[in-house]
Amino acid sequence: MKIEGRNAVLELLKTDKALDKLLMQKGAEGSCGRIYALAREKNVRVQFVDPKAMDRESESGRHQGVIAYVSEYEYASLEEVVAEKGASRFVIVCDGVEDVHNLGSILRVAECAGADGVIIPKNKNAQVTGAVVRISEGAANHVKVARVSGINYAIEKLKEHGFWVYGLEADGEDIYSSDLTGDIALVVGGEDRGIGMLTRKKCDKIISLPLLGQVNSLNASVALGIAAYEAVRQRR
Amino acid sequence: MKIEGRNAVLELLKTDKALDKLLMQKGAEGSCGRIYALAREKNVRVQFVDPKAMDRESESGRHQGVIAYVSEYEYASLEEVVAEKGASRFVIVCDGVEDVHNLGSILRVAECAGADGVIIPKNKNAQVTGAVVRISEGAANHVKVARVSGINYAIEKLKEHGFWVYGLEADGEDIYSSDLTGDIALVVGGEDRGIGMLTRKKCDKIISLPLLGQVNSLNASVALGIAAYEAVRQRR
Repeated sequence: MKIEGRNAVLELLKTDKALDKLLMQKGAEGSCGRIYALAREKNVRVQFVDPKAMDRESESGRHQGVIAYVSEYEYASLEEVVAEKGASRFVIVCDGVEDVHNLGSILRVAECAGADGVIIPKNKNAQVTGAVVRISEGAANHVKVARVSGINYAIEKLKEHGFWVYGLEADGEDIYSSDLTGDIALVVGGEDRGIGMLTRKKCDKIISLPLLGQVNSLNASVALGIAAYEAVRQRR
Repeated sequence: MKIEGRNAVLELLKTDKALDKLLMQKGAEGSCGRIYALAREKNVRVQFVDPKAMDRESESGRHQGVIAYVSEYEYASLEEVVAEKGASRFVIVCDGVEDVHNLGSILRVAECAGADGVIIPKNKNAQVTGAVVRISEGAANHVKVARVSGINYAIEKLKEHGFWVYGLEADGEDIYSSDLTGDIALVVGGEDRGIGMLTRKKCDKIISLPLLGQVNSLNASVALGIAAYEAVRQRR
């Protein structure tokens, strides 16, 4: 898997994940100096190539002079994500988030909001590819992502572990009247169809953001960001 | 909308219609010098490209080295956006939001959060193009967008009209300790460089979202979404 772009590679180097090699563009400036220093410190093999070779290797077309090669994304297990810890747990569940930009953005929100992990289904949902890692600005390297065969089974597991599961949809209870403290999971649906019918039924409660205009919904990752930070606010 | 050809562009530049940008072919001669001078005088962003790129951009196939981009979008005036109304006013100010996805998403947030309007600068910021309207899911047609030559002048106007101006940055006062009721404006900066130095100084206060992870920032439109909805929560 290729991780491209300065921020994404910088965040990757800060983790203990192993890099196969790092491609750097000859004469690249700015934060590339810092990236090179970190890579050397971690004994990563660095190869300098000219811009044309960089462009050839790039999958995103926006490598900014650095491409890191890592083995496939290391998913966490469902158990790791729901595991007991000293404090209240906070998990995000994706149900049909097919747009890679939305998934990348959700992982970035999850990391910034201090979530314990994100659960995604193996099917009908974007997977954590190099592009998603780049869009997440490297947050995917810091937040645990568990990949499950079925979201509904995962929700049952969450409930068994004492989580209160909230589905984020347009027709639920006002989020500002909802208690988001304790062990909670926020379920966010796909861009077009929202949360699946069966999954919706499995949620303990459907919660909604107030919509004060004429457009009937917010972008999935923005809505999740607002809900996740309402949880952050209440949990402090 | 594209206006192509030397005479057409020259006539256009003589009107008070706003140009999003002007594409000029590298090394173009003749009346192109005059076109360039006029464009500079009007603070139009001019981009020089090679003949192949010009041909690609051209819709008519007869660009003669110049293509002007004119917005079909009907901007509101600054006065309309800051106008007194019965209730508290809420305005969003963009300072260097260059990514069209972010601007579209910000307009969608503004509309959903019931903002009275969005102010964007003519330069170094995405403009409301067809693509932005599409990304906003049509919200751009419902929310007032004022386009100004200078953001700092607009902020002064906002203050004169009794607004309290908050800049959204990483190193300010905790947003959850800040009073977002009354007449307020939220300033959101560009993806990479944030709010400009001078603009920052013009803000009454810098406010921040808590970042609980290791990645140092949220996407601009997600951050704005969270801040705008914190205002929605407080104002109810």
